[in-house]
Amino acid sequence: MADYSLYYWPMIQGRGEFVRLALEDAGADYDDVARRDAPGAGIGAMQALMASGKRPSLAPPFLVDDGLLIGQTTNILLHLGPKLGLAPRTMHDRLWVHQLDLTVADFVNEIHDTHHPLGVSLYYEDQKPEAARRAAVFVQERLAKFLDYFERTARENTSRGPWLVGSRISTADLSVFQVMAGLRYAFPRAMSARESNWPRLLALHDAVAARPRLAEYLASPRRLAFNEQGIFRRYPELDSE
Amino acid sequence: MADYSLYYWPMIQGRGEFVRLALEDAGADYDDVARRDAPGAGIGAMQALMASGKRPSLAPPFLVDDGLLIGQTTNILLHLGPKLGLAPRTMHDRLWVHQLDLTVADFVNEIHDTHHPLGVSLYYEDQKPEAARRAAVFVQERLAKFLDYFERTARENTSRGPWLVGSRISTADLSVFQVMAGLRYAFPRAMSARESNWPRLLALHDAVAARPRLAEYLASPRRLAFNEQGIFRRYPELDSE
Repeated sequence: MADYSLYYWPMIQGRGEFVRLALEDAGADYDDVARRDAPGAGIGAMQALMASGKRPSLAPPFLVDDGLLIGQTTNILLHLGPKLGLAPRTMHDRLWVHQLDLTVADFVNEIHDTHHPLGVSLYYEDQKPEAARRAAVFVQERLAKFLDYFERTARENTSRGPWLVGSRISTADLSVFQVMAGLRYAFPRAMSARESNWPRLLALHDAVAARPRLAEYLASPRRLAFNEQGIFRRYPELDSE
Repeated sequence: MADYSLYYWPMIQGRGEFVRLALEDAGADYDDVARRDAPGAGIGAMQALMASGKRPSLAPPFLVDDGLLIGQTTNILLHLGPKLGLAPRTMHDRLWVHQLDLTVADFVNEIHDTHHPLGVSLYYEDQKPEAARRAAVFVQERLAKFLDYFERTARENTSRGPWLVGSRISTADLSVFQVMAGLRYAFPRAMSARESNWPRLLALHDAVAARPRLAEYLASPRRLAFNEQGIFRRYPELDSE
């Protein structure tokens, strides 16, 4: 039995990817349960756990670690960071990394809502004009607001190296990597027109992608492709310079 | 000098209120800095701290505790909970409380977006038809999705008493109280048509409001009134049965 069991929708990177990146970078032994077609696995096993009375999550992803069920992406990262060598040593620094992870989560919500401004239960096709308006505001205002903040965070870290906090990689670096990769997929025109404004984040992205275990992972079938069911969707009508 | 300095917009309860409730329930000595009109206080002091190079937050609220600057509402609660007697004893239970706090934060985002579906930088008046569509989906689907989840959480807590986790109050209880109060303000018709579905949450709300320090606080001028600049806005056109 694997050390960790991750439960997330099998067709998309989604929020589960932030957890996968941590597990993969650490070379952790984990079971991506809902992606496995077997008795006790698959989406059915995930939904059974959500319907159970054992402190279930409202939504995936969630993780089982030694009988402990933990939900909410950033909470999972808070728990895993120290165990996987992806957290700083002091509580002060750990709170700061968690704060950055939470700010990434806010950003991810806004990115998602560019294609779902009226709600998750409606199709994109039912909210295209509204999505176009929201995406325009996102590209013109929100994109730089968040990325300027993370760029500044990287710049103001006085330790050597490409990372956001101190001299060691943390979950916040993996999460910012994922957002940069996703934004390049979903908003190629907006990003190529702007990304030179964020040289530290580009360096961070490349440093994460070059980590040996992650380079292997990103080239493997375990890394799902970005697609139009996930958070980062390439809808050309929402992208602009 | 107070033990804690809280920084948040002075005109609204907003996300700062989740922190205030914890500080008030504990009888903590805190300075609500941006609400004080004095040199080194006010909104100017808050904005100066956001512009500083000391691990600033992207947005308020943030807290200064013994020189440590902490941002993101749920991160502040994670830090304060154990110090204020508002956290369970074990790490397992603390992660669960944090997970619930994070789920409240997700809910608060959705409640906010009922009046701002196209983005925070546009006025409500510029997105009224879209807000009406989003609010209808919210009332018909999302409201019960979240409140059913918290109701079930309270019901499945096998400890005595009205709380969500174990037999002691936690930040999650204060946060659910605040959401229930806010929803009753913003969506009186939707709530009065439905709230009998959530008896445990009604009991929790009343138990929180009856705590002596909070009862005093809620009746004091320190408790700002709900209003149409905050998260919970009473726009009758967005409310429905």
